[in-house]
Amino acid sequence: MKNMIDAITKFRDERGWKGNHDLKDLAISISLEANELLENFQWKSDQEALQSPDQNIKEEMADVFIYLLQMADKMNVDLEEEVFKKMKKNAIKYPVTK
Amino acid sequence: MKNMIDAITKFRDERGWKGNHDLKDLAISISLEANELLENFQWKSDQEALQSPDQNIKEEMADVFIYLLQMADKMNVDLEEEVFKKMKKNAIKYPVTK
Amino acid sequence: MKNMIDAITKFRDERGWKGNHDLKDLAISISLEANELLENFQWKSDQEALQSPDQNIKEEMADVFIYLLQMADKMNVDLEEEVFKKMKKNAIKYPVTK
Amino acid sequence: MKNMIDAITKFRDERGWKGNHDLKDLAISISLEANELLENFQWKSDQEALQSPDQNIKEEMADVFIYLLQMADKMNVDLEEEVFKKMKKNAIKYPVTK
Repeated sequence: MKNMIDAITKFRDERGWKGNHDLKDLAISISLEANELLENFQWKSDQEALQSPDQNIKEEMADVFIYLLQMADKMNVDLEEEVFKKMKKNAIKYPVTK
Repeated sequence: MKNMIDAITKFRDERGWKGNHDLKDLAISISLEANELLENFQWKSDQEALQSPDQNIKEEMADVFIYLLQMADKMNVDLEEEVFKKMKKNAIKYPVTK
Repeated sequence: MKNMIDAITKFRDERGWKGNHDLKDLAISISLEANELLENFQWKSDQEALQSPDQNIKEEMADVFIYLLQMADKMNVDLEEEVFKKMKKNAIKYPVTK
Repeated sequence: MKNMIDAITKFRDERGWKGNHDLKDLAISISLEANELLENFQWKSDQEALQSPDQNIKEEMADVFIYLLQMADKMNVDLEEEVFKKMKKNAIKYPVTK
């Protein structure tokens, strides 16, 4: 994911936006983009949502991910490591029932 | 990101949860987790939010990412490709001003 | 609030939208509108957010309220009664410290 | 709605919370509560969501409303007036088709 983070921080710094990007506003941005993604499913089943071209769905997913990567970079968080830690915790919380 | 997706789908399938995971509920889940992440910053500045251990912040970031990866997998979306496409679009929308 | 609910349900029924309005999609809609409201404060302090005319803020507040009233009507919930019940519960949870 | 607003501001002021309540954090709070409301419908149809007692749904609706009333009070917004204004705008945007 390093190459994505590099591209995103380069983009941000070229525009002089680094100063604005506090964690609170990045967290707000993740929620806003998550809801723009969700809007594609408002009043719709999956089948209905996928009848229109799914370009907007893909773009909103990218937007959520772009802000999440920025937040991870700013906090020095290794997202992949955190995912595996969380999966281990989930495995204990929700054991496989035979 | 392939190894994360493999771990997540294995976890889901071992618990028989595959059938529940429609896209609409995955999109809902991304919004829910984004807001649990945001809750860490409610009534707080970044400095205040980071005074408590940041474990919860990291876990909520992982949760957003886990659901996003599941949605991408289900839609056969390559998240990395979408990020670079979106960055190109953003670069045209927000040109660098000298 | 009766007159608002009457106006909203009349509006909905005249357009034949009653059938679409399940509770899950109303709950989704409340989250979407809450985030459109929140968008007015993204990357901004209160002072900066209020520098532009606050018409959009007011409209998004109205949108949150319109969906909340529809959900309350559909569930036969008296929102005012619920607010007072919740305030009582909050008063026990957060006692006044002298 | 005056009596609700009076009760809510009295509650807030007795606890010395007035200073914290900027508009940005109130907008964040509305999104957080909207998502706690939405959580009741995650992975569920309306019928499944209503099988458990609906007390939590009602409380989360009250929480959304309490923060919305606080924001309206702080901005000197008459929510009822805004709802009727928005309904008029919606009526023009979505005309009744015979």
